[in-house]
Amino acid sequence: MNNASETSVAVIGLGLMGRSLAGAFLAAGHTNTVWNRTPAKAEGLVAQGARLAPTVGDALRASAITILCVTDYPAVRELFGTNDVDGTTLLNLTSGDSAQARDTARWFEQRGARYLDGAIMAVPQTIGTPDAMILHSGPQADFNAHRETLRALGTVSYLGADHGLAALYDVAGLTMMWSVLNAWLQGTAMLRTAGVDAATFAPFAQMMAAGVATWLPGYAEQIDSGSYPAEVAALETDARSMAHLIEECEALGVNAQLPKLFKALADRSIAAGHGGEQYPVLIEEFAKPHSG
Amino acid sequence: MNNASETSVAVIGLGLMGRSLAGAFLAAGHTNTVWNRTPAKAEGLVAQGARLAPTVGDALRASAITILCVTDYPAVRELFGTNDVDGTTLLNLTSGDSAQARDTARWFEQRGARYLDGAIMAVPQTIGTPDAMILHSGPQADFNAHRETLRALGTVSYLGADHGLAALYDVAGLTMMWSVLNAWLQGTAMLRTAGVDAATFAPFAQMMAAGVATWLPGYAEQIDSGSYPAEVAALETDARSMAHLIEECEALGVNAQLPKLFKALADRSIAAGHGGEQYPVLIEEFAKPHSG
Repeated sequence: MNNASETSVAVIGLGLMGRSLAGAFLAAGHTNTVWNRTPAKAEGLVAQGARLAPTVGDALRASAITILCVTDYPAVRELFGTNDVDGTTLLNLTSGDSAQARDTARWFEQRGARYLDGAIMAVPQTIGTPDAMILHSGPQADFNAHRETLRALGTVSYLGADHGLAALYDVAGLTMMWSVLNAWLQGTAMLRTAGVDAATFAPFAQMMAAGVATWLPGYAEQIDSGSYPAEVAALETDARSMAHLIEECEALGVNAQLPKLFKALADRSIAAGHGGEQYPVLIEEFAKPHSG
Repeated sequence: MNNASETSVAVIGLGLMGRSLAGAFLAAGHTNTVWNRTPAKAEGLVAQGARLAPTVGDALRASAITILCVTDYPAVRELFGTNDVDGTTLLNLTSGDSAQARDTARWFEQRGARYLDGAIMAVPQTIGTPDAMILHSGPQADFNAHRETLRALGTVSYLGADHGLAALYDVAGLTMMWSVLNAWLQGTAMLRTAGVDAATFAPFAQMMAAGVATWLPGYAEQIDSGSYPAEVAALETDARSMAHLIEECEALGVNAQLPKLFKALADRSIAAGHGGEQYPVLIEEFAKPHSG
């Protein structure tokens, strides 16, 4: 009895993020069915026009696509373990790792469902604006079928058929986020010893981060070709500058752990014979576990 | 006998970088005097119109401003120990730390010279183009007097009267550079386990770095006010995501040292009672030494 229109959407899980997702679908004019273990969480959405489903199965059957945003992947299995999902389409935006995404995709697909896995790179407050980036992985045809509906949530992108990709891009993006923030904090701590306030240093740090980011596509070619000629600088030159950075941090009395880790990684690559090659050769260190 | 025109420039030290500096002054039409311990290094520049000075003192007296680009700060002292520098203006672009810059400024100023300290954030190949960023610190009037001449080298900026600032911004900028590169390598290593090549991931990493960089001026206000309300996310939420990142790295068999350091820093701040505050509160960890 799936007679829902193409723009009927269910949202399962009404935490802060789930409520933002449902609110964005409502704001974009989509038919919205919601379900939550504690129905009281749905009150505000129902006042805005959402329909509260009595069961997960009811929400699922009422909608062309069902969005999952619950605590974790085990909670997803628990909610859907006894429901008939044959012929339904699900988009799981629950946080998890790439192995959970792949396993859950298999679990749903074996039961006849279409399954997309996604990751929300945004805080609830920005959902429904272009600032909210939502990553999707799984069968491209299923993403394409619902792309227009999903645009209600923010900037949507499709990464590939491998269901684990959204989770991987998500943590890779967070790694970039923390790295830029930590580098900025390291520099801010150093400059504050000279009486420079954070607001004065921030535009310089912003310019550096954005500037270095423009190098990445070019450096990526070195990695994909496995050849790292020192066109700009050799890794051993970087390592000498890292040594000066460590000395400066220690002289200033600021934390030197980050520079020390940079140098440890570079030193291992140099010890492996790569001192005359360019920085991206460090991929060989990042690509393997380190026991230390 | 300092009767040089305003645009007469001397360059002391003709390594790869020094030769690029002299070449850029010549290309911009400035009178250029050069000196190097090994005079043969000057041959190409002399062919382009530079004058080779027989001594450091001769180069100094022939020019309105003298640029120093030698091995290190002790080499600067050695070269100028017996020369009369009274009434001259020097810009030291030799690599060094902030304490060396401040000490050398005092040493020259006590002998009657005007002294600026600078840092070159560029490789020799880009000198003379807008891509070459040259940072300057010291008395603003002395920078202003030569700003137009120095523009021949690239994008010039003035940081403040404290002679140590150029060296500090330099290493802070390098910290951002290595951080962005390392975060990109970490993400690339993770994505490659799923068959995603570096060129496919690079634009995403570039967008993330540039996007997060736009947050820095706003976050700087939190640091300067010493107040870190969790407007976007609390540090303890970041720490949980970091734990997931570490697990994902270990499951994929890639290096997890960078995520582990992120989490160690966050955990110390949480242990100090800051788990409910926002990420920039970590400045308190970065601002002090860590013995570990």
